[in-house]
Amino acid sequence: MTRNIHTLLIDCNDAKGLIYKITDTAYRYGLNIVLNREFVDHETAYFFMRTVLEGDFDHQKFLQDLKTQLPENANIRLSSDQKKKIVVLATKEHHVLGDLLIRHEFDEINAEIQAVISNHETLEPLVQKFELPFHFVSHLGVEREEHEENILKLLAQYNPDYLVLAKYMRILNPSFVEHYPNRVVNIHHSFLPAFVGANPYQQAYERGVKIIGATAHFVNNDLDEGPIITQSTGSVNHTYSAEKMARTGKEIESRVLAEALQLVLEDKVFIHGNKTVILD
Amino acid sequence: MTRNIHTLLIDCNDAKGLIYKITDTAYRYGLNIVLNREFVDHETAYFFMRTVLEGDFDHQKFLQDLKTQLPENANIRLSSDQKKKIVVLATKEHHVLGDLLIRHEFDEINAEIQAVISNHETLEPLVQKFELPFHFVSHLGVEREEHEENILKLLAQYNPDYLVLAKYMRILNPSFVEHYPNRVVNIHHSFLPAFVGANPYQQAYERGVKIIGATAHFVNNDLDEGPIITQSTGSVNHTYSAEKMARTGKEIESRVLAEALQLVLEDKVFIHGNKTVILD
Amino acid sequence: MTRNIHTLLIDCNDAKGLIYKITDTAYRYGLNIVLNREFVDHETAYFFMRTVLEGDFDHQKFLQDLKTQLPENANIRLSSDQKKKIVVLATKEHHVLGDLLIRHEFDEINAEIQAVISNHETLEPLVQKFELPFHFVSHLGVEREEHEENILKLLAQYNPDYLVLAKYMRILNPSFVEHYPNRVVNIHHSFLPAFVGANPYQQAYERGVKIIGATAHFVNNDLDEGPIITQSTGSVNHTYSAEKMARTGKEIESRVLAEALQLVLEDKVFIHGNKTVILD
Amino acid sequence: MTRNIHTLLIDCNDAKGLIYKITDTAYRYGLNIVLNREFVDHETAYFFMRTVLEGDFDHQKFLQDLKTQLPENANIRLSSDQKKKIVVLATKEHHVLGDLLIRHEFDEINAEIQAVISNHETLEPLVQKFELPFHFVSHLGVEREEHEENILKLLAQYNPDYLVLAKYMRILNPSFVEHYPNRVVNIHHSFLPAFVGANPYQQAYERGVKIIGATAHFVNNDLDEGPIITQSTGSVNHTYSAEKMARTGKEIESRVLAEALQLVLEDKVFIHGNKTVILD
Repeated sequence: MTRNIHTLLIDCNDAKGLIYKITDTAYRYGLNIVLNREFVDHETAYFFMRTVLEGDFDHQKFLQDLKTQLPENANIRLSSDQKKKIVVLATKEHHVLGDLLIRHEFDEINAEIQAVISNHETLEPLVQKFELPFHFVSHLGVEREEHEENILKLLAQYNPDYLVLAKYMRILNPSFVEHYPNRVVNIHHSFLPAFVGANPYQQAYERGVKIIGATAHFVNNDLDEGPIITQSTGSVNHTYSAEKMARTGKEIESRVLAEALQLVLEDKVFIHGNKTVILD
Repeated sequence: MTRNIHTLLIDCNDAKGLIYKITDTAYRYGLNIVLNREFVDHETAYFFMRTVLEGDFDHQKFLQDLKTQLPENANIRLSSDQKKKIVVLATKEHHVLGDLLIRHEFDEINAEIQAVISNHETLEPLVQKFELPFHFVSHLGVEREEHEENILKLLAQYNPDYLVLAKYMRILNPSFVEHYPNRVVNIHHSFLPAFVGANPYQQAYERGVKIIGATAHFVNNDLDEGPIITQSTGSVNHTYSAEKMARTGKEIESRVLAEALQLVLEDKVFIHGNKTVILD
Repeated sequence: MTRNIHTLLIDCNDAKGLIYKITDTAYRYGLNIVLNREFVDHETAYFFMRTVLEGDFDHQKFLQDLKTQLPENANIRLSSDQKKKIVVLATKEHHVLGDLLIRHEFDEINAEIQAVISNHETLEPLVQKFELPFHFVSHLGVEREEHEENILKLLAQYNPDYLVLAKYMRILNPSFVEHYPNRVVNIHHSFLPAFVGANPYQQAYERGVKIIGATAHFVNNDLDEGPIITQSTGSVNHTYSAEKMARTGKEIESRVLAEALQLVLEDKVFIHGNKTVILD
Repeated sequence: MTRNIHTLLIDCNDAKGLIYKITDTAYRYGLNIVLNREFVDHETAYFFMRTVLEGDFDHQKFLQDLKTQLPENANIRLSSDQKKKIVVLATKEHHVLGDLLIRHEFDEINAEIQAVISNHETLEPLVQKFELPFHFVSHLGVEREEHEENILKLLAQYNPDYLVLAKYMRILNPSFVEHYPNRVVNIHHSFLPAFVGANPYQQAYERGVKIIGATAHFVNNDLDEGPIITQSTGSVNHTYSAEKMARTGKEIESRVLAEALQLVLEDKVFIHGNKTVILD
């Protein structure tokens, strides 16, 4: 017998008795609370709650019932444990993509990779090994807007829940990102906000840093500036060339993106302004 | 105007509606829930909850009210934000003690150090700098039982909430520990369960490990076996002598004990069998 | 024009003037020292040196020349920058193997994977994606000795420089290991010497540890006891089931083995008794 | 009998045979090489070597002898194992200073703290506990230049080898720093180059980072831009207020500065342009 598990995500202005009202409603519907995480951001007086519920119930009725009891601005999401659909955008680097493909192959991420799209053909053989669709959409000879339009058309066929930028080395126009608000996850090859922009490992090398890092974040209008999901760092020293720093960095990038995706794909991440609240 | 803040700790057998019943009670007493953390250990079907409450209320009545609604085996603790009282036991090593004394001096731990007790006089000058009572209780020429009795008599004067073993290098009899059940915190100079017992850094050196660590834990009958609170590790390599490993380890020890004490002294740690549940 | 690069590894009893003698010899042969690392273990008065040399020279003559100047027990190895040959042994777990295959595919390890041997068929499809030989050598219905004989016969065909145990879940007889002295690298799913033996994550879960780790080491007669090459750790907490600990551990395992292999395959690791000296 | 130990530091343009020439000279003077570390920065073709020598010898003659064999721009330093003299500058924060004072008290840093200078009186009681001179040099009512002149006058009395800025919260003029070229060590409360400038923890909080860090570096004309010695990081999350981030950061700061000072005071750090080369 399968357990009937749902994840309820709520965020709204803070008010007295919110936890009580939500757990009371679950109680009245005969649901068991498997796990409950809340957080109140006191600076903005804003409330977040993630509840894992077990049981059979009328979703529509439950949500309407909840809605009447919560502040007007409440965002309420109820998600089943169905896999998310994702499309991966990459360029030429295989590290992050290879890691994702292996995890996907062995069913370790809560997602179905629908396709990989790239502006180069380099990664096609790798993707084909795993029998997934690979789309080459060249950026050569077309304007940025047209290139992005071409990608958007492809994406429309797949209708993914999330876009994952697995070292996609081109800057996306805000007009592109707007199609997937809070649904584009990027791995930035640097410990943001240090070394924003191109060639961060070269920058790190020139600055003589002793630690490098990587940052997984949602993309908003300003490429390197969206809400940070996860970060990680690793030690380097004076014997590291810029190339070796990059190599070390790539290991960190793969790890950080995998961690971030796990959180996002398991509905554990809220976006709050330019920050994330992670209820794990 | 001071905020009226209390921490409520509850653990009991798991049952449907516990969170609802607890938050409902808080709601009825007009209390604001500042922070709420729960955890259910599904293996043992056991429930833990830590709630920070704000407001004025009749503590006695509130606790009785709660008690009637919770499973019979429920442990309910309500603690004010008053500082805990601690006595520190040490031997000759100053690292962990020095760190504690500085933190205490600048009011960074939620505790009042009532006294330091040692079986050596080595640390007396350090403790005196901070104008705290130092008691030298020699273990020479007396049986272990008598030595421990002498310490217990001293402790009885202070009636501390917790005993902190800051590198107290003698094994305590179960009969001693029983006086402070779940209230003795030890820092073990090793990454338990590796290198149990004496000279762990020498053991680590001889084994040629590449990482060493330290463990803060509650003491039960078996010295190195109580519930683990926090652990931390650090890298070492073939150039490290046993002495340098010990030096590196001492830094880790101070850090780990400070972290553990912060959790314990802020009422964030539950003991569950031989494990801890930390609701931070 | 390619640079003519060689790595010289020397270990012997310590004596006055060793560095001088070695660098003097290199100087006389017109060689440029690109990199030089030495270490003296003072406890055993033993000397280690790794020198990267650039230039054309008569290898035989150079080595003979060196030999006359060094203590009698000197081990002298001169290795070209040719890739090492490795055979991977696995059982059913894909994490470590998958990671290795991706790195190999993109030429990131200094080795040619000649084949993968397993006592299960589970991983065959994965290995086939990368067009590498996969050999299924069942352990069912045969004695351990016979099973190992069958593997040894296969290995004889490949004559690998190193055997890599990528989560090979069977204990190897000393008689097997003797065929590849100091040439079998294992990843142990635990932070040795804690949790030696089977089910380390279950053991870690039951002990309630706050940090888990993994250990890459050479295999000697006693499976979990060989010289440690690299270790790494990661944080866990009370919310982790034994399964989630294992999942977290697998990430660490892949990373640790990759680091260890990089060191071994680039001739940076000396074995000294039951320890390693790593000159990176 | 004491061992006669000296540390030789050499940096110069790279050339063939440097290691040979240096070790040959040591050999001819009958010296034993206890430890040898070299590094060549290939980008700038620059050579660094740190050698620990044991034996009795005519220093003057040895250095002249060496000089004739090395490139003209060679910097040659020979230091005994005598303690370095340091003066600490602080403002109001006690964390880093407290940590230093404890280490100094127990003879764990290779330095004699000659005095503590501060532009506030806050830390006087702490310094007095350890019976060290404390100088209050107010910045109120005087120009920055005059204030710095007053500090320089004090420093002239002590003639320290290094100045340690233990959370000295004022920017130093280049004219001040010039008196102690490559001899001023600062702890910056941020993971440089992120969050340069004031209130880095507030900046980190507002950016929603998941990791914070600290940086120990030499001070040059541009306060936050000198050569980095050591860095370290720690995890934070959405539950951290800016204050809690700062608290976590202070722990990291103390640790990072202690590590950096150990390296500097044991003559292990070379400055090369705006970077450090650390031969440990």
